[in-house]
Amino acid sequence: MHILVTNDDGVQAPGLLALAQAMRPLGKVTVLAPDRNWSASGHVKTLDRPLRVRETILADGTPALTTDGAPSDCVALALLGLIEPVDLVVSGINPHANFGHDVTYSGTVTAAMEAVIADVPGLAFSLETPHNHHNPDYTPAANIARRVAKKVIAEGLPEGVLLNVNIPYLKETEFKGIIITRQGLRVYRDELVRREDPQGRPYYWIGGEAPTGIAESGTDFGALAEGYVSITPLQLDLTARTALESLRSWEWDSRPSPGGREKG
Amino acid sequence: MHILVTNDDGVQAPGLLALAQAMRPLGKVTVLAPDRNWSASGHVKTLDRPLRVRETILADGTPALTTDGAPSDCVALALLGLIEPVDLVVSGINPHANFGHDVTYSGTVTAAMEAVIADVPGLAFSLETPHNHHNPDYTPAANIARRVAKKVIAEGLPEGVLLNVNIPYLKETEFKGIIITRQGLRVYRDELVRREDPQGRPYYWIGGEAPTGIAESGTDFGALAEGYVSITPLQLDLTARTALESLRSWEWDSRPSPGGREKG
Repeated sequence: MHILVTNDDGVQAPGLLALAQAMRPLGKVTVLAPDRNWSASGHVKTLDRPLRVRETILADGTPALTTDGAPSDCVALALLGLIEPVDLVVSGINPHANFGHDVTYSGTVTAAMEAVIADVPGLAFSLETPHNHHNPDYTPAANIARRVAKKVIAEGLPEGVLLNVNIPYLKETEFKGIIITRQGLRVYRDELVRREDPQGRPYYWIGGEAPTGIAESGTDFGALAEGYVSITPLQLDLTARTALESLRSWEWDSRPSPGGREKG
Repeated sequence: MHILVTNDDGVQAPGLLALAQAMRPLGKVTVLAPDRNWSASGHVKTLDRPLRVRETILADGTPALTTDGAPSDCVALALLGLIEPVDLVVSGINPHANFGHDVTYSGTVTAAMEAVIADVPGLAFSLETPHNHHNPDYTPAANIARRVAKKVIAEGLPEGVLLNVNIPYLKETEFKGIIITRQGLRVYRDELVRREDPQGRPYYWIGGEAPTGIAESGTDFGALAEGYVSITPLQLDLTARTALESLRSWEWDSRPSPGGREKG
């Protein structure tokens, strides 16, 4: 069992170290992670520039690889043959939860997407650290990550499915359990913040308060609000199946199509 | 009707000009697009640096706005109030198709995702330009884009749904029609290309042949192979519903959970 560990916070992030250490009892671990923070960077495939890879050392002395690419680039490089064949990709531990719409922005989650596209199981782990905690304890979350990875190694994942795992910030004895959820609804509270530089020219921050969510039962956000670890299976088929029929009922043009019938 | 036009190829791309011109009969058009190419850049929210916005002029003399942010940042800036309220966001016309798994990588598509997150209808337009065409004719595709946008303005889109529109490279008289499809399967043919710089240090390209796809009937890729315009409704709920049951049947741990029951 060869496990690739990556993240979107950069190779020296403490959440990555905790995840790498948690995976070690399960197999051989290789770390290949970005050399900087790529939070909210999305699903990237870097095609317009080459990527550098260099060796580094984690805080516990573990050798690791780092690149100037995105989290999904790290996974692509690894699975295209930079390192020996990988059986499982784990990403994280992100210091903030990745709920709802976060999943397409999140480097943590898109790294796991990249694995699934290459037919390798992918798991994304995120910890819901309270806003005032700048030095979170990743130990309980890392133990959860090991349990989830162990189970996935034993059972396998359905084809095309990745797991988005969100872990509440609780002590080991406080978790209510693990539940399988659906993706919930994020509520973003972004605001445009206009400032002026010393020359009087405007610039803009995407600011505002941290996002919240709708704590509906059965969802990722709802599970964490109740003290459960949330595991949401995600797929890369985004087809809105419930919309297919209504769109097919539209008359796409009253005039005959130039040169052909309209087929709804 | 106020229509925001953006893209992922940069504000001076001819596909954007064709789209902006095509939208003009439908309402007021504002162009806000990146100042460089962001292809395969994914769904980005730039929070770690401020964004600049400057005025520019398109090749036909149209005033436009451009930023150093990603396509999804352009949409966020606009919808957060940089410009007056927007009723419809259109993105493109991308000079390459966006099929299957492309949708989470694609700046063209993620711009439309950003619109939908803000409850504004979003449409992504991509043209399947043949590989040897470096100066494609966007006119037929732009006419299709106007027809689709006109229909969406008249009918409205289901909540949370964006449209991923792929247009075959055909003359007006050659289109077989418009069909509503599901997201198909991309086949990537990426290869790791290792090179050495003049100092003998390695660097890596994600290279290989252009992706292909599985031309299954009813899918985006299948529709274009048959000469149809493909419209795929997409949603941002990625929950793999078919996997929920099997994951719930797993025993997550044989030992009792520390401090609580396991709930499948």
